Amino acid sequence: METMISGGAVEKSNADREKALRADYASLGAQLDRRGIAIDAILAKVEAFGVAIPSWGVGTGGTRFARFPGQGEPRDVFDKVEDCAVINQLTRATPTVSLHIPWDKADASRLKQAAARFGLGFDAMNSNTFSDASGQRQSYKFGSLSHADPAVRRQAVEHNIECIEIGKTLGSKALTVWIGDGSNFPGQVNFARAFERYLDAMKDIYAALPGDWRLFTEHKMYEPAFYSTVVQDWGTNYIISKELGDKAYCLVDLGHHAPNVNIEMIVSRLIQFGKLGGFHFNDSKYGDDDLDAGSIDPYRLFLVFNELVDAELSGAKDFHPAHMLDQSHNVTDPIESLMLSAVEVQRAYAAALLVDRKALEGFQEDNDALMATQTLKAAYRTDVEPILAMARLNRGGAIDPVAAYRASGYRQKVAAERPASVGGGGGIV
Amino acid sequence: METMISGGAVEKSNADREKALRADYASLGAQLDRRGIAIDAILAKVEAFGVAIPSWGVGTGGTRFARFPGQGEPRDVFDKVEDCAVINQLTRATPTVSLHIPWDKADASRLKQAAARFGLGFDAMNSNTFSDASGQRQSYKFGSLSHADPAVRRQAVEHNIECIEIGKTLGSKALTVWIGDGSNFPGQVNFARAFERYLDAMKDIYAALPGDWRLFTEHKMYEPAFYSTVVQDWGTNYIISKELGDKAYCLVDLGHHAPNVNIEMIVSRLIQFGKLGGFHFNDSKYGDDDLDAGSIDPYRLFLVFNELVDAELSGAKDFHPAHMLDQSHNVTDPIESLMLSAVEVQRAYAAALLVDRKALEGFQEDNDALMATQTLKAAYRTDVEPILAMARLNRGGAIDPVAAYRASGYRQKVAAERPASVGGGGGIV
Amino acid sequence: METMISGGAVEKSNADREKALRADYASLGAQLDRRGIAIDAILAKVEAFGVAIPSWGVGTGGTRFARFPGQGEPRDVFDKVEDCAVINQLTRATPTVSLHIPWDKADASRLKQAAARFGLGFDAMNSNTFSDASGQRQSYKFGSLSHADPAVRRQAVEHNIECIEIGKTLGSKALTVWIGDGSNFPGQVNFARAFERYLDAMKDIYAALPGDWRLFTEHKMYEPAFYSTVVQDWGTNYIISKELGDKAYCLVDLGHHAPNVNIEMIVSRLIQFGKLGGFHFNDSKYGDDDLDAGSIDPYRLFLVFNELVDAELSGAKDFHPAHMLDQSHNVTDPIESLMLSAVEVQRAYAAALLVDRKALEGFQEDNDALMATQTLKAAYRTDVEPILAMARLNRGGAIDPVAAYRASGYRQKVAAERPASVGGGGGIV
Amino acid sequence: METMISGGAVEKSNADREKALRADYASLGAQLDRRGIAIDAILAKVEAFGVAIPSWGVGTGGTRFARFPGQGEPRDVFDKVEDCAVINQLTRATPTVSLHIPWDKADASRLKQAAARFGLGFDAMNSNTFSDASGQRQSYKFGSLSHADPAVRRQAVEHNIECIEIGKTLGSKALTVWIGDGSNFPGQVNFARAFERYLDAMKDIYAALPGDWRLFTEHKMYEPAFYSTVVQDWGTNYIISKELGDKAYCLVDLGHHAPNVNIEMIVSRLIQFGKLGGFHFNDSKYGDDDLDAGSIDPYRLFLVFNELVDAELSGAKDFHPAHMLDQSHNVTDPIESLMLSAVEVQRAYAAALLVDRKALEGFQEDNDALMATQTLKAAYRTDVEPILAMARLNRGGAIDPVAAYRASGYRQKVAAERPASVGGGGGIV
Repeated sequence: METMISGGAVEKSNADREKALRADYASLGAQLDRRGIAIDAILAKVEAFGVAIPSWGVGTGGTRFARFPGQGEPRDVFDKVEDCAVINQLTRATPTVSLHIPWDKADASRLKQAAARFGLGFDAMNSNTFSDASGQRQSYKFGSLSHADPAVRRQAVEHNIECIEIGKTLGSKALTVWIGDGSNFPGQVNFARAFERYLDAMKDIYAALPGDWRLFTEHKMYEPAFYSTVVQDWGTNYIISKELGDKAYCLVDLGHHAPNVNIEMIVSRLIQFGKLGGFHFNDSKYGDDDLDAGSIDPYRLFLVFNELVDAELSGAKDFHPAHMLDQSHNVTDPIESLMLSAVEVQRAYAAALLVDRKALEGFQEDNDALMATQTLKAAYRTDVEPILAMARLNRGGAIDPVAAYRASGYRQKVAAERPASVGGGGGIV
Repeated sequence: METMISGGAVEKSNADREKALRADYASLGAQLDRRGIAIDAILAKVEAFGVAIPSWGVGTGGTRFARFPGQGEPRDVFDKVEDCAVINQLTRATPTVSLHIPWDKADASRLKQAAARFGLGFDAMNSNTFSDASGQRQSYKFGSLSHADPAVRRQAVEHNIECIEIGKTLGSKALTVWIGDGSNFPGQVNFARAFERYLDAMKDIYAALPGDWRLFTEHKMYEPAFYSTVVQDWGTNYIISKELGDKAYCLVDLGHHAPNVNIEMIVSRLIQFGKLGGFHFNDSKYGDDDLDAGSIDPYRLFLVFNELVDAELSGAKDFHPAHMLDQSHNVTDPIESLMLSAVEVQRAYAAALLVDRKALEGFQEDNDALMATQTLKAAYRTDVEPILAMARLNRGGAIDPVAAYRASGYRQKVAAERPASVGGGGGIV
Repeated sequence: METMISGGAVEKSNADREKALRADYASLGAQLDRRGIAIDAILAKVEAFGVAIPSWGVGTGGTRFARFPGQGEPRDVFDKVEDCAVINQLTRATPTVSLHIPWDKADASRLKQAAARFGLGFDAMNSNTFSDASGQRQSYKFGSLSHADPAVRRQAVEHNIECIEIGKTLGSKALTVWIGDGSNFPGQVNFARAFERYLDAMKDIYAALPGDWRLFTEHKMYEPAFYSTVVQDWGTNYIISKELGDKAYCLVDLGHHAPNVNIEMIVSRLIQFGKLGGFHFNDSKYGDDDLDAGSIDPYRLFLVFNELVDAELSGAKDFHPAHMLDQSHNVTDPIESLMLSAVEVQRAYAAALLVDRKALEGFQEDNDALMATQTLKAAYRTDVEPILAMARLNRGGAIDPVAAYRASGYRQKVAAERPASVGGGGGIV
Repeated sequence: METMISGGAVEKSNADREKALRADYASLGAQLDRRGIAIDAILAKVEAFGVAIPSWGVGTGGTRFARFPGQGEPRDVFDKVEDCAVINQLTRATPTVSLHIPWDKADASRLKQAAARFGLGFDAMNSNTFSDASGQRQSYKFGSLSHADPAVRRQAVEHNIECIEIGKTLGSKALTVWIGDGSNFPGQVNFARAFERYLDAMKDIYAALPGDWRLFTEHKMYEPAFYSTVVQDWGTNYIISKELGDKAYCLVDLGHHAPNVNIEMIVSRLIQFGKLGGFHFNDSKYGDDDLDAGSIDPYRLFLVFNELVDAELSGAKDFHPAHMLDQSHNVTDPIESLMLSAVEVQRAYAAALLVDRKALEGFQEDNDALMATQTLKAAYRTDVEPILAMARLNRGGAIDPVAAYRASGYRQKVAAERPASVGGGGGIV
């Protein structure tokens, strides 16, 4: 398997850190043992856990006010694959890439090969009908799959079907559909008619789905539409998945909800009714801020994973959620942010595995709210970093991914090779 | 028909105002005529429109910090019926009362007769499992229909069935179920198990529903539970109504949503999927403030009615929503607030009737967002007060209900008759 | 005075509408007369009212996801001035333009002359340190006036001083400073040190302010920074204005607050303490949506003007607020949106003038909450459109600005003259 | 010193846990040593840290919908002091009690003695003008310190002065003023006049303040007033403290802000301008939920303490904030919740002490946002429980306070002694 950073550099970085790690791992192991938890079983689960990298995440993001490019930004999807290879090499937590079409359009066979070189596979395909590609016949200014004009809807359906076709070659098994359709003024659209048109268009896309694929629809409260959004919340998303059929599932982006909403409860509902498709992980303080996963409210991320682990252990049916990061890196090196965000997602998973579920259930039955919540907190405040680092070390990654990355000089190298990027969808999320 | 305020007093109040009203009605009629609208057709619809008064609304409300009682508060359900009679006498817009059990428990036949004296009927019955009635075997401290203990759930189910029984005698045709079940701490309840128990309990209640009744479930984001609520949003509410069956519908309380949520869009979705049961009208700025309908954001109330009128005119199926006020009157005379709130709801309805729907549809098809929204605004900013006042006058009510009420001395009279109230559920919402 | 649209076209448009307008004006006059209000006095105030147009508002706006250009977008500041001339010709409500530097950089004398041709003046100057101009030495990626590096702060200060210099030539009398400085991660900046640096830099700008100028600082909760913003709310803004001195005032953009915040109360506080500088009018439902003024919550706009009129009538000291629109027109013709938004701001002002303030004060003293709020509502629901239209007609504008504009063919004409715009800051807000 | 629970019971509880604690403390010490931190220095700071218990917190709380009493609720302030003694005995983190007048009115000397028996002192006094005490001449229904009627304001001022008098005897050194004044309807109050009256009344209270006392005013966005609140945010609170003088400071209750607001930044601003008086700690998800401190968003609590520790270490002037819990315990045993919440506050403090501030400052200077935020996270995710437990053990408290409390049978004992409580202000917050 090829790597972008030399194995020696990683080994060197680990050499300085391994002794301390083994000490920390041992004392954590002893502590967990006292709590009746075998640390190696947790380690094994963490080693098997992966989260997909969005191809657009490796570019620098921006806002409507400005985008401040970073150095060495990827020029095309092949550069993006190389950046993703770095992330996976150092974290061993991101085995797949999720593409965005048309931004990532390329010869699919060549692309598959390019990724395979680094052992990377392809996660869900993402269509784009929220912006106009150059040369496109119909504009999406007033919507796409819900547009009043059937010609626009047809174009949007065909684009989604094209995404499926590309994905088939690449080995993807899912299509994620997020649209920006909505309105900026009361009265601009008729809510019911727009939703009908959307459902009809989605049925055409669903019909084109291979038998072993899944279709993920993604809700979002607002932005880019600012008065109403067609797929505005999980209620609408749930209806969509029911109307479409058994291969249709809801995708939850953590940043796409109203203020104060209890997201972990939405996750529970979707699991209970067999419709949780997966996640776009990120964090936010105000709106769809697309900040790094776990950077603002790490306990919320843990509570989401508490639901996921509960479902995993209780054998919930139709439960095999896709995990993907979806963030905007406006002020950091995207590779660094994606590495640490993948680790942060793993961290929430590892901590959720530590919850004493038998005790928790007992406290719940007894209405012992205090001890129930302390049971979650006891797991959450355990510092699982030694487990995460050991999982990386065992699988050839870096104990400290950022340190190893910085020491490698990768960014400086690609900065020299890649001229400043303009456009191409990099970093827009 | 008996009245609480003498007919002569109302006539006197109207005498001073009728000339100006007729002038305003005539000039509005001329203006609407130019816009292609027959004012008398609107008047007829307004005259036929009614909204139910919640029995608890006629008492002074409060907060967890304090309740500052008003004068002459109703001592029991018979006093409440008298206050409701005043409201309907002066507004002619509130022909029914909605009861809350056990607060309003009384001999049902006698109660029916008491209301019939004033021409009042009974709207939906409301159960109460969010507080403990004195002498109750099981406590609802940790939930009711979703409680971990089957004995508590059974008691809550039986209470709801009792409400149906009382309602049958009174001529009610619907049961509204709102519960406070939820949790205050992460981990306190298992979301999925609690919702399963809730659904099972609701199925028992549904089974007891007479064939010509409807069951309304009401969602609320939070309060009294502050971390999670079992029926937290319309998504969960929709699932409930689907799981229960054709007689189950969702009730929308305008104050029960997350900040910024587009409520009119939720209304549209529920209409589109045949599950809109009705409304609890009120207004709010922060949380479930239970302020007077239309007092904070009157345009939002209009936009809700824009959806309702659209559905009414297009013949949406399963569309016969119940209208009820549900407010907390902490600093006003409840009778005055309820009168003006009923008028405010009528106002939104009347204005929505003025929307040029043919033009609107054309602008929507053409993506002419500006003219579409102006079409709504043209209707909204028409001052329909002359139509509302004429509707009252025509049906024996007061042109200016508050002026007539104040002139009548009703509050002073009951203040003398009714000693200061303690407890009894008055005003709590 | 030159006009962009022929006077004859406007007259023709008015000819069809004048008779109905005069009838409506007369009946409104009679109604107001009954309420003790002289309609002509209101008309005179409305005629004297103006709101500035932001130069960037005449371009099509967009989001971080996409910008869908309109036809005939202005290519430079001279085109923008022509579009602003159209807006003022038809509404007679927008006598000034507010420039954004460097987007609007041009020979200042020539620009002044270009505007003077149409009778347009210049409102506050706006600096831009939230994006990097091409060729700029230092980047604002990590802040501007609060940046850790003194060289960046110096560049930002100099840019602001340059804006003052340009403004002097143009006849502007104020500088508005809005910055995007903040952070995306906890810990990224030290709040106190960043604010100290900001204050120091602002003191340098303040020192360069001519004696008859005012300095407006603008707060915003978030965006483009997503964890913290240096001037995040009115509290910080107030401190800034106190630290700087008597010429420093707070500017309130209606879209820059946390959810649920009572903005009219903030306006009152700033008036009371002599620090209200002015407004950026727009509307929003979720975040800083920059929707058309009055399009989402028209009652809130009225309540803001209720405070302004109260201050105007009571002779509040240091009270001479600047009025400016600041919106993003993503799906409408910007000229149309700006015309109707200016009218909407006038509408709020006219309605606020109708409040019976003597009665209001009496109800407030008596704690008659119901009648106090009804006093506001009575003014608000009066349809003042006849007054607004008469003000336009009297001053040479159009009774129906959008109809006149569409009939004029202006957009088609400039679409032919102006090739599709790229960049130049058009529409970004 | 007397204790409510026998020392032997605590020792027994600790005996089972001490060995594991010493092992965990040792391995944490080794880990911190590697990071250049001396664990014993942290321990010493934690041992010296205290947070006050609100007397009303030991009663069961409720909502406007219901209050479900617990067993053995305190009947009067002497019972409350005993419960507070238990909390401090087991946690050694809560050396003072904060009283609420008139709920806690009693012979002050006797009360002082009662507390001194357990080594407890008195923190800030709290006045109550948000509810009507029985027998009170004037009602606070329409406000207190800002009321339109001078007689009401005078009564409210006198009540606050009485609180100071009581506090003098008890050894308190601060008065906290939180009022519920505001409005439920637009127009109900004139914002400026109400604030003027408030300021005038506060000046009278300030004048009665002993030289060595501080005055804390507390802002809150809403509730019990639902349209506007007189002291609605920190901006207004800051103005108050400036208008009153050097002994006036702002108190920050974590639950009193608009959704999404960055509270740690407000804390920073108040420190920077010498006006941070102290805290009411609690947590919330929706509104002023008054949930247990750290139970919903523990990282936010840490970020607040990050500011406090930064100020402590940098020697910020006028910086000596008061720490108090202020929570509503609706579903837990209040003693348990208060013990764990005090520990949670200590936890945030201890973790904030671990931040490598020199490294942090370097990353901030270099705009290395990723490493800056990781520096905070490295401190936050360190499990400091061994330090907290060791601090308790060293000072005679319990390693596991809840386990020791439950084993002691204290609740069962007082349940037998104290009949079910009604009224008395217990639990209302």
